[in-house]
Amino acid sequence: MITFEVELGERSYPIYIGAGLLAQSRCLEDHLHGSSVFILSNDKVAPLYLDAVKQHLGAYRCKHLVLPDGESCKSLETMHRVYSALLENRCDRDTTLLALGGGVIGDITGFAAATYMRGVPFIQVPTTLLAQVDSSVGGKTGVNHPLGKNMIGAFYQPQCVIADLDTLNTLDDRELSAGIAEIIKYGLIRDAGFFDWLEQNIDRLLSRDPQALGQAVHRSCKNKAVVVAEDELEKSGTRALLNYGHTFGHAIETCTGYADWLHGEAVACGMLMAARLSVRLGWLDEADRLRIERLLGKARLPARAPEGMRPEQFLERMAVDKKTRAGRLHLVLLRGIGQAVLTADFPASKLKDVLQEFCGA
Amino acid sequence: MITFEVELGERSYPIYIGAGLLAQSRCLEDHLHGSSVFILSNDKVAPLYLDAVKQHLGAYRCKHLVLPDGESCKSLETMHRVYSALLENRCDRDTTLLALGGGVIGDITGFAAATYMRGVPFIQVPTTLLAQVDSSVGGKTGVNHPLGKNMIGAFYQPQCVIADLDTLNTLDDRELSAGIAEIIKYGLIRDAGFFDWLEQNIDRLLSRDPQALGQAVHRSCKNKAVVVAEDELEKSGTRALLNYGHTFGHAIETCTGYADWLHGEAVACGMLMAARLSVRLGWLDEADRLRIERLLGKARLPARAPEGMRPEQFLERMAVDKKTRAGRLHLVLLRGIGQAVLTADFPASKLKDVLQEFCGA
Repeated sequence: MITFEVELGERSYPIYIGAGLLAQSRCLEDHLHGSSVFILSNDKVAPLYLDAVKQHLGAYRCKHLVLPDGESCKSLETMHRVYSALLENRCDRDTTLLALGGGVIGDITGFAAATYMRGVPFIQVPTTLLAQVDSSVGGKTGVNHPLGKNMIGAFYQPQCVIADLDTLNTLDDRELSAGIAEIIKYGLIRDAGFFDWLEQNIDRLLSRDPQALGQAVHRSCKNKAVVVAEDELEKSGTRALLNYGHTFGHAIETCTGYADWLHGEAVACGMLMAARLSVRLGWLDEADRLRIERLLGKARLPARAPEGMRPEQFLERMAVDKKTRAGRLHLVLLRGIGQAVLTADFPASKLKDVLQEFCGA
Repeated sequence: MITFEVELGERSYPIYIGAGLLAQSRCLEDHLHGSSVFILSNDKVAPLYLDAVKQHLGAYRCKHLVLPDGESCKSLETMHRVYSALLENRCDRDTTLLALGGGVIGDITGFAAATYMRGVPFIQVPTTLLAQVDSSVGGKTGVNHPLGKNMIGAFYQPQCVIADLDTLNTLDDRELSAGIAEIIKYGLIRDAGFFDWLEQNIDRLLSRDPQALGQAVHRSCKNKAVVVAEDELEKSGTRALLNYGHTFGHAIETCTGYADWLHGEAVACGMLMAARLSVRLGWLDEADRLRIERLLGKARLPARAPEGMRPEQFLERMAVDKKTRAGRLHLVLLRGIGQAVLTADFPASKLKDVLQEFCGA
């Protein structure tokens, strides 16, 4: 088991990465506050792992709620259901919430923890690759609004993150690829050496080589932890770099009603679009863009906007991006592989050209 | 104008108290971040003061949303409406939210600020006595759930509080009395000298003597600021003392569907119930309880539970109180006037006796 700390002063917490962690009780028990635990999971993950987790919680009053799987569940309506379940089960501030599932469950549980009775502790147990390498770390919690992705939420840090690599064996191939998209992101924004490693090891990741997956999760979490420690509340612009590809990606997810595309798929397409814009601005070599396209392609990730989505639909959704300042859209673009920048310094016409290209018939 | 600081480290902020503050622009402008302002108000307050506030905001992009008046509006459904308005108006993290109204508007606006795009700045402009002396100070924000009052929310501090005493002239008598209930609370929990002063000056407050109101608002805010600075997140038990009367009061509000009783009225009745329980435990002199009853009576505040409400209904609602720990109900009780304690050390039977007494036919 690998253990390391996300350094956030009094809000610091450890990330545990390893095989078979759900079969152990220590990680969990060390971080439970109070006498009661409430587990949130979904109908895909709960049948696989809920019992294994509950087995260690014999000493606690333990309740759970199982939600439908999928991003379309990440809504204010679901939050109402969660709050009702917590109140009906008489959960008080002595209750620790536990997120058992992917990014959606983690975001919902974290936001419930941030806002139930004005704050209770919570633990992340991510069971998808995407959640293990990205969404479970760093304290971004929240839900979607029909008009924008992740528009309602809070920064709220967990007590710990427990990433059991064994849970990746039950992922379907699309979910695996979606996670790889966020892994590739770290290489692109700040770790060129990792990008090289990924080019060499992509086949091992796709065939679920446990050692390769462990290395990729570890290095991704390390990258994320450093960025989050530097800019927890996304004030300086550093943390915004983690959003590479996401402004385009969120527009895709919002426009498709959070239904057809997985988050990682939308981000993959968005990363390609941002790379293309970077090339058009003369900031990125076409050769490097091709490397990115090739790696994402090998990972079986989409390279075109959803069928029928128009450039104006992108622009409309992108206008409410959280990185917008004083009405001005900011994007994360590349100055090279491993060198992302947050900028508003691009002509609208070049952005439109790129949108046209990815939406073109 | 009186100015003083709520001392919370990097989250510190000033409270301004005085007549005619809305007619000045300085207080407001000093605390506006970014280029855009979004005002939340209700249909009772907006016709009176919205224009006055907007007058100072010519240099900003300024939008507003007017909600229906009343506690029943403090719900997750309203939050959805607020988020939609913010997104439709393209508000980004450069927007400052402004709460123009009573406690309900303040709580909704604060929670919107805490959770819109994971946090934007906000300013409190309380226009009721209750909001000026209590709810606008200290960063408690949130909404109600059908199963419990203030169950969904966050601790989130404003940029400043601007309490214009002139706005108290347009309050109706019931609202004035409701505010006086929270003022009396400070005397009861930690400021016996203030309680004496209130006994001597209650008639001046009821006749809206500006000087007396100014003194009462100032001393109340001072008391609150000290408590909040000591225990911002309600961890040590100190801040919980501000909840004197509230556990009973919240049960009344929840049971009556947040419709008939004003918050301050429910709290007044709750404070009497807690005083009665304190007497039954031998902690408070009956003579002091009578002083409390007399002062609340003079302030035209209710001394009996709502018609038809039963003891079991109290117990059921009180079971989900935020002060409950490991399933055990905690109450704020009195060891004397000015000496509140948080305790679970009372027999359930004595609590039931008190409920019976206040519900009795």
